[in-house]
Amino acid sequence: MREDGPAALDWVADYLERVRELPVLARVAPGEARTSLPAQPPECGVPFAEVLQDLEEKLLPGVTHWQSPRFFAYFANTGSEPAILAEMLAAGLDQVGILWRTSPALQELEDVTTTWLAELLGLPPGWHGQLEQGASQATLAALAAARESRPGFVLASEQAHSSVDRACKLLGLELRKIPVDGEFRLRPDALDLDGASAVVATVGTTSTTSVDPVAEIAEACSRAGVWLHVDAAYAGCAVVCPELRWAFDGIEGADSLVVNPHKWLLVTQGCSAFWTRRPEALRAAFSVVPEYLRTTDEVVSHSEYGVELGRGFRALKLWTVLRCYGREGLQEVIRRGIRLAELFEAWVRDEPGWELCAPRPFSVVCFRLEGSDEENQALLARVNASGKVFLSGTTLDGRFVLRLAVGNARTEEEDVRLAWDVLREEARC
Amino acid sequence: MREDGPAALDWVADYLERVRELPVLARVAPGEARTSLPAQPPECGVPFAEVLQDLEEKLLPGVTHWQSPRFFAYFANTGSEPAILAEMLAAGLDQVGILWRTSPALQELEDVTTTWLAELLGLPPGWHGQLEQGASQATLAALAAARESRPGFVLASEQAHSSVDRACKLLGLELRKIPVDGEFRLRPDALDLDGASAVVATVGTTSTTSVDPVAEIAEACSRAGVWLHVDAAYAGCAVVCPELRWAFDGIEGADSLVVNPHKWLLVTQGCSAFWTRRPEALRAAFSVVPEYLRTTDEVVSHSEYGVELGRGFRALKLWTVLRCYGREGLQEVIRRGIRLAELFEAWVRDEPGWELCAPRPFSVVCFRLEGSDEENQALLARVNASGKVFLSGTTLDGRFVLRLAVGNARTEEEDVRLAWDVLREEARC
Repeated sequence: MREDGPAALDWVADYLERVRELPVLARVAPGEARTSLPAQPPECGVPFAEVLQDLEEKLLPGVTHWQSPRFFAYFANTGSEPAILAEMLAAGLDQVGILWRTSPALQELEDVTTTWLAELLGLPPGWHGQLEQGASQATLAALAAARESRPGFVLASEQAHSSVDRACKLLGLELRKIPVDGEFRLRPDALDLDGASAVVATVGTTSTTSVDPVAEIAEACSRAGVWLHVDAAYAGCAVVCPELRWAFDGIEGADSLVVNPHKWLLVTQGCSAFWTRRPEALRAAFSVVPEYLRTTDEVVSHSEYGVELGRGFRALKLWTVLRCYGREGLQEVIRRGIRLAELFEAWVRDEPGWELCAPRPFSVVCFRLEGSDEENQALLARVNASGKVFLSGTTLDGRFVLRLAVGNARTEEEDVRLAWDVLREEARC
Repeated sequence: MREDGPAALDWVADYLERVRELPVLARVAPGEARTSLPAQPPECGVPFAEVLQDLEEKLLPGVTHWQSPRFFAYFANTGSEPAILAEMLAAGLDQVGILWRTSPALQELEDVTTTWLAELLGLPPGWHGQLEQGASQATLAALAAARESRPGFVLASEQAHSSVDRACKLLGLELRKIPVDGEFRLRPDALDLDGASAVVATVGTTSTTSVDPVAEIAEACSRAGVWLHVDAAYAGCAVVCPELRWAFDGIEGADSLVVNPHKWLLVTQGCSAFWTRRPEALRAAFSVVPEYLRTTDEVVSHSEYGVELGRGFRALKLWTVLRCYGREGLQEVIRRGIRLAELFEAWVRDEPGWELCAPRPFSVVCFRLEGSDEENQALLARVNASGKVFLSGTTLDGRFVLRLAVGNARTEEEDVRLAWDVLREEARC
């Protein structure tokens, strides 16, 4: 630690300083990273310095730089410095949260951080919160609990995330897709809850970040006794800003909710906050306590509320970020992201030959070049191949559309400007 | 990073130097860690130094020290120094493996490390390997694939891990428990495969580390067209030693296999190696590719073979450990663990008033004081309350039994000796 640690630390610090200049999307061909390494495992150990050297020379070319301020694809994120250091601290402690007693600090810091985050997001007090690896796991847990409470089919809008499809497939539940309105929001008038087990409402859909009308859906679910799970993996982060609280209108009627601090709240990968006001239903769906895990502890372990048995100390990175940024620091990150997306949106709106394709409630702009799908796809491929910026695409109303997602906290106006310049330049080719 | 990093690094190095002397099992009461922290989230950010200070003063008392060489409960593990630094490097890069293109290095390093590990364990070449967060997720994926190939019930021994129960509950599959022989191994003569979807065989059961007869089970499964999943989460690590290859006899007949490098191969929490020779069945069970994730890449993403959509760069820590220890270094850790367990086993065998309760194929000793269950439970509680060592218990043939699990690579003979001294001393009280 004392010998090799400083070099590792320097490598990370250097990386963060130079990442803006690196080609954002990895330029390797399939198999290139793999074949740069020996086919056979090492017989003897080597000094850590060799690992660092191979990371730099052999692996880095195969890295797509999520940490780049010029990463605008999917939902851009940020591994902040406090979170990076917290990951090292957590690794040093190497906690395994199986039962409360195997790490009281881990379990109770999950309680503290999810309570803090609930307060920052204006959630009703008293919900049970815990941290999962990702929203896929949280949504799976929520739908398993819903099925346990009341079997039936699942409803979600046709813009809901693929993790809903996957969870339903796994749980053997039929998923019925509900049409959306002109702004890609679930149409509550199309909800037929007779025979339903659960509805998944999305606050911030993946393609356009549209917000389903949670209040209206919650009321219908409550009347029908149907579980309401709210997937706010991305946009829930934005609700730390009071001016964006509207996105959680009616949230008190939800049975469960997922928000990913690893998306837009500066936490490194693997930290999804999951709340429920019906923890007993989760426990009924998951609890299995074998002989070798029986204790006299009077605390229910978080592992009884999900798929995972031994959980990592994710709470440490979330706690560190909440401490080091505070409510104000997080609000600033969200507001800057939104402001940059607004700028970009205005540039597209004002430019002949380009069109906006969806409303922009947060920091994602959906747009396209007036022309064919093929032209837009080719444009996206050229832009990404330039290495200067990285964007992704989606399909809306049957048309291929480009997406620019601001989410990296290190993104400046010059980076968004570069994206626009590269797009216009490549569009002229 | 440059300012606060060195302090964080020092904290971890200091922690590892003093962890042997800390009370192994946390001594806090439920709620103590939680109430030591403010109920409200911070409004403004604070310097990272305050986080370190609170970690030391408020959280550390609530930590159960998995890193202690005197941790002998469950399956003891080790977060090695190379793995800890690799976690920081991975956090610095903050990769999100959704599709191959979102991190070719991540996906291909999963290929490389699972291929290397397969070679170290003597697995047949060509299996598809990837890294999951834990064995629970891997077993869930395996059984989902089995169900996809052929619906039916699942069979496992009554000594199988609770994650099998949980996966079956989630997948809506009936689980039939098969009786074990006098050495806690699944009895193949009791296997009735008619109507079965899958069998889970365990190499190293949680209570006693018994090894199910994989070769015999595989042959029966192959004849009947039933999926065989092998759960070798703990003991599979030991198979890096050629003298322990017997535990994988017949493994070539398995359809899937899970081994946890985070258990006994020096990797920090959250690294489970999962192989299958039938990846197409996994893909059929899990693949959902929405519009916003379609690409022209000709590589199947690892996310199509499991529950998780965005995976972390787990491969970096496994790769770092394999590089820094090599085959020899890993073998040495396994052999030392087994030798220490052998020593302890001999001490128990030779001591009047104590008895061994199961064979010891690896590094876990099951034993008890001759007397009632209550006496043994009280003894365990006193030993753990001493803070000097931490052991766990289980139930075998209806009797409460103590378990001493050697698995921390920093454990020395003096630590095992201390455990034995404390046990005998507390037994006299």
